[in-house]
Formats: sequence, structure tokens, C-alpha cells
Amino acid sequence: MHKFDTDRLAAFSDGVFAIAITLLVLELDLPTGTESSVGKLILADTPKLLAWVISFLAIGALWLHHHYILSQLQSVDIAVLLLNLALLLFISVAPWTTSLISAYGDQPISVIFFSTTLGAAWLSITLIAIVARNRGLLRPNAPAPEPGLTTTLVSIRGTLIAILSIGLAYIDTSLAVLVWVA
Amino acid sequence: MHKFDTDRLAAFSDGVFAIAITLLVLELDLPTGTESSVGKLILADTPKLLAWVISFLAIGALWLHHHYILSQLQSVDIAVLLLNLALLLFISVAPWTTSLISAYGDQPISVIFFSTTLGAAWLSITLIAIVARNRGLLRPNAPAPEPGLTTTLVSIRGTLIAILSIGLAYIDTSLAVLVWVA
Amino acid sequence: MHKFDTDRLAAFSDGVFAIAITLLVLELDLPTGTESSVGKLILADTPKLLAWVISFLAIGALWLHHHYILSQLQSVDIAVLLLNLALLLFISVAPWTTSLISAYGDQPISVIFFSTTLGAAWLSITLIAIVARNRGLLRPNAPAPEPGLTTTLVSIRGTLIAILSIGLAYIDTSLAVLVWVA
Amino acid sequence: MHKFDTDRLAAFSDGVFAIAITLLVLELDLPTGTESSVGKLILADTPKLLAWVISFLAIGALWLHHHYILSQLQSVDIAVLLLNLALLLFISVAPWTTSLISAYGDQPISVIFFSTTLGAAWLSITLIAIVARNRGLLRPNAPAPEPGLTTTLVSIRGTLIAILSIGLAYIDTSLAVLVWVA
Repeated sequence: MHKFDTDRLAAFSDGVFAIAITLLVLELDLPTGTESSVGKLILADTPKLLAWVISFLAIGALWLHHHYILSQLQSVDIAVLLLNLALLLFISVAPWTTSLISAYGDQPISVIFFSTTLGAAWLSITLIAIVARNRGLLRPNAPAPEPGLTTTLVSIRGTLIAILSIGLAYIDTSLAVLVWVA
Repeated sequence: MHKFDTDRLAAFSDGVFAIAITLLVLELDLPTGTESSVGKLILADTPKLLAWVISFLAIGALWLHHHYILSQLQSVDIAVLLLNLALLLFISVAPWTTSLISAYGDQPISVIFFSTTLGAAWLSITLIAIVARNRGLLRPNAPAPEPGLTTTLVSIRGTLIAILSIGLAYIDTSLAVLVWVA
Repeated sequence: MHKFDTDRLAAFSDGVFAIAITLLVLELDLPTGTESSVGKLILADTPKLLAWVISFLAIGALWLHHHYILSQLQSVDIAVLLLNLALLLFISVAPWTTSLISAYGDQPISVIFFSTTLGAAWLSITLIAIVARNRGLLRPNAPAPEPGLTTTLVSIRGTLIAILSIGLAYIDTSLAVLVWVA
Repeated sequence: MHKFDTDRLAAFSDGVFAIAITLLVLELDLPTGTESSVGKLILADTPKLLAWVISFLAIGALWLHHHYILSQLQSVDIAVLLLNLALLLFISVAPWTTSLISAYGDQPISVIFFSTTLGAAWLSITLIAIVARNRGLLRPNAPAPEPGLTTTLVSIRGTLIAILSIGLAYIDTSLAVLVWVA
């Protein structure tokens, strides 16, 4: 079984995280309208701005977690690389799901896409942590079980929020998005 | 002959891979139409979503392979740098060929562009592996010949799939794209 | 308290800085108009070109400063990571605030958005420097207090320019933007 | 005089180079027109495709050269950082000048913008090499003077091509662009 060092995986992942988180702003089109004051135009775009901040924080939280888990690994194998590729797939689609929410935020299906991809990203991170432990990829001086357990719990929480958010989407879409802030 | 270390080549390549793979999502325009339900609009965009996932996987596979080959190299010279630049040219055009397939997927010429550039990327990687071996750039503790052979075989397979896919394009375009999934 | 090394934080931040600074150019649309000479069209776009150069320099200055502070740190903890995420939020919105200024440069509210986000970015860097010192994250062989003091002073100056610029925005918007050049 | 290590400068520069070189493809809009065959549409877009390949190669050549010069440096100071920022300014504008050439390739002013920014980028690299030598930032085990001399000569050649290309622009614009290929 060929083992790779984690450096290049981190660099590639950082690239995708950084681009996805920065591309979010491209969804913030310039405010346009008949209103002469740009202040009022921006005010009317508040939902878009909110969707942008929430997505930014959601990807930021995923990055923090990814950073934390990779700092515990000594090396990665093909299984981790493939799981990580799945994670990046769900991260890179974020600009699209965010603009979906901005444009069609009142329809549950938009929130379902948004939450499913975020949830799938958290699930991928959880699986990376589990697979890495089972395959003995942790650093010898890795921290005590508590942090590891916390890690898994935090990951599972992310996945659960996704499911909860999808459920809420059928009741109230704004509520479903705000769950991610908490 | 000046030799460079592989770190910066990997960083630059990771950047181009990461950007190309993330820009793919920009081709996924927001679904629009007279249909009131966004769910149905997205359903109508299934070919686009499929093209996006296939391109993502194709670039991901190329990255995995690139990662593997570079992990075997001790240093790179100008020949490898130029071949790598050719590889990045074919990677960076992927968002364009993907949108070509999304928009004109029923015409063989779209698939030919898509497959030719992917095939050229695989060919570039194959050449990097061969050139690096011939010029003695491998690590002293590089793995046994088997993996190296496998590497070349996998690369050649990628190139062959491209040729096969182009042939199929004249028969059925969907089939030609799906070959890449296999 | 888990401590992380600074390498991956620097890589991720570099990614966001690099993307934001490069995306600025996307705001420079191709000059269009009835004028037949492209030279005259570009001349008419001078305010856009100026906004682009000013934003580029503003983000460049922030990056230089970020680079300098991180080079003094030995490790980072979760507080620094979160402050850094706030910083990146304000950096990544720069392409949007820059296009806001290009399109609505005559309205104070555009300059307020532009200057508030830049000021918030400087404030985040100042806080990173202060928090890192208080939590003992500096390198043992960190330079003498003078540079550290200078650092904080430069950061505070950035924040003050932001406040000054917002004040000026109510008097003259061009003046408010040009303050950033000085 | 505070000295920085070259790693983070390389990472940030790689980011800007990688993004600029990949964003070029965004200028390749999907071919559209009344022509039913996409093949003929692409054929009509040949000048755009050519402009894209030339720009890709021009930025690639600059990156190779930047890579080479940085590999000779032991550390960088604020003068090099500022020159490098100027270099990145001229690199990041490449997607815009490339689209200018695609759209208004028949007007000398487009070629002048394209060539001036490329020339300024080569000039910045030349200045980085000269400044770094004068300030004693080279590695102790740096290669013999020949490569260094070659480096400067290659850089100056880049600058000269830019001037030549601008001169040619007044005679024939296609010729002026093709000079960069040679």
C-alpha cells in the first residue's frame, strides 16, 4: 500500500477551499434596479449578503475541521485521497448552491441542495477521520482519545445539522438556513 | 543542467488543478425558465450536472496520478517543467470543454474537444513519468519497478480511453462521455 | 489548548489573498460603446482602472503585513484561526466592493462599504498581532519590541485611514478613495 | 532590515500565477452564432483560441523564470516583496489584456496594452534579480555567474520583445502578437 505525505493533499485542498470560499462573492452581483440610491439597492439584497456570510462561515468551519484532522495524520493512503476528493466535490459546488438559495430561497428544494452538500462534506470529513484511525495513519504522538472523540462528535453534529436543516426546509426555509449559523 | 526541487512545481500545479476543478461549477448557471418549481428546472439541467461531475472526477483522477508521479521524483529539470506546463494547459481548458459538452453535447465535435484535451493531459503525465526515469530524476529509494510500470500503464490507459471516446463520439455522444466514468 | 503550526494557515490565507487580488480584474469588463477607437473606450474607463489599481495595492499591503506578522508566530491557536477567518471574509469581499465603487463611485455608501471592509481587515490583523502576543505564540527569537510596536501602529493606521476615508466620503468620494493610496 | 524566507512569497506568487493562467480560459466564451455546426463556430473563434494559447505560454514562461530566480535566493527583503507585488499586478491583468486582443485585435492600442504589461512583468523580474544580487540575498552556494548572466539576458530579451512588439503593432497587429511566440 503506497502511502503519501499529507503536505500536498493539504495544499490541493487548501486551494479548493480558498477558491470556493472566494468565488462565493461572485454570486453577489452588483445591486441593480430603478432605485437611485445604492444604499436601498443593497438593503434589498440583504438575503443575498446573508447567504454569502452563512456560506463563508460554513466553508470556514469545514476548513478549520479539515485542518485539525490533517494535523493529526502522519500520512495518507488512496482511501483518504478518494474521500478527500469527494469532500472537495461538495465544497466546490458551494458557490452554486449558495446562488440557488439567493435566487430561490423560498423553495425547500434549494435548501435541500444547500444542506445536502454541506452535510455530505461533513460526512466525508467524518469518514476521513474514521478511516485514517482504522488504517493506522495517525501520528504516533497524536493527542489523547478525547480530542479524537470530540472530532468525530463535531463531524457527526455537522451531518446532523444538515439533516435537521433539510427537515426544517419543508416548514420554513429561512429557519433552515439559519440553523447553520448556530 | 540546472535541477529544481519538486516542491514549487507541485504547488503551482496544485493551484492550477484546484482552480480548474473549482471553476467547473461556474459553468453550472442558475437554472432559469418559465417553470415555477426550481426542482423541475434542476431536473432539466441534469446533463449539465452530469458533465460537471464527470469533469470533476476526470481532473481529480489526473491530480491523483500527478501527485503519485511527483512523489517519486527527487528533482525536476526544464524538460519536466515544460511537459508539466503542457499538462496544465490541457487541465486549464477543462471548464471550457465541459461547457462545450453541456451546450453542444449532441455534436461529436464537442466530445472530440473534451476527450482530446483529457487524452493530451494523460499523455503529458505519461511523458513526464518516462522522461523523469530516463533522466535519472527518480528518488534513490523509489518503489520497485512494478508500481512504475503500473503508472505508465494507467497513463497509457487514460490516453487510450481518450482515443476510444473520440471514436465513439461519431456513433453516440453520451456513450463517449460515459466512457470516462468507467 | 491545541496548537497548530502556521504553515497551513499561511497557505490557505495566501490562496484567498491571491484569488481575491486576481479576481479584481474580472471587474474590468471589456470596454464597450459606440466609440470606434478602443483607446477612447479605455480612457472612459479610467475610474475603473484606478479602482482596480487601488484595490490591488490595498490587498497587497494587507498581504505584506499579514506575511510579516505570521513570520513572527511560532504556532497559532483557535482564536487566531477565527480572527484570520474574519480577515479573509473582509479580503474576499474586495472584488465586490471594488465593483461597487466602479459603478456607484459618486455615492458615499459605496465608499463606506469599500473602506469599512478594508478597515475591518486591518483591524483583524491588528487583533491577530495582539492576541498572538498575549497568548505567547511568538517565536522565542522574535525581533525586539520596536518592530512589534511598529506593526501594531501600522495596523492601527490602516484602521484609522478607513475611518477617515468614511468621513471624507460624505464630502467627496474621489478624495475618500485616494486616501488609501497615501 | 527584516528578512523573510522565500517560501511564502513563492506560495503567494504561485497562487496569482496559477489563477491568472487558469482565468484566461474564462475569456473563451462558448462559441455562439447562427451556424448550426459547433465545429464551424469554433473555427471562427480561432483568433481567440490563439490569443489564449499565446497568453498561456507567455505567463508560463514568466513563471518558469520566476521559479528559477527564486530558487537562487536565500531570503527576500521588502524591496523584493514590493517588486514582486508589481510583477503580480502585471500578471493578474493578463486575462483582461488577452480579452482586449481577442475583441479588438485589429487596433494597435490593444497590442500595446498586451505587450506593455508583459514587458513590465519581464522588467519586474529583471529588477528582482538585480536587486537581490546587490543586496546579498543570493544563496551562498548559488550557481556560477554564467547562469546569472543568462538570467538577466533572458529577462532583458523579454523586455526588448515587448518594445519590438509595440513597434510592430503600428505596422501589423497579428505580427506583433506572434513575436511573443518566437
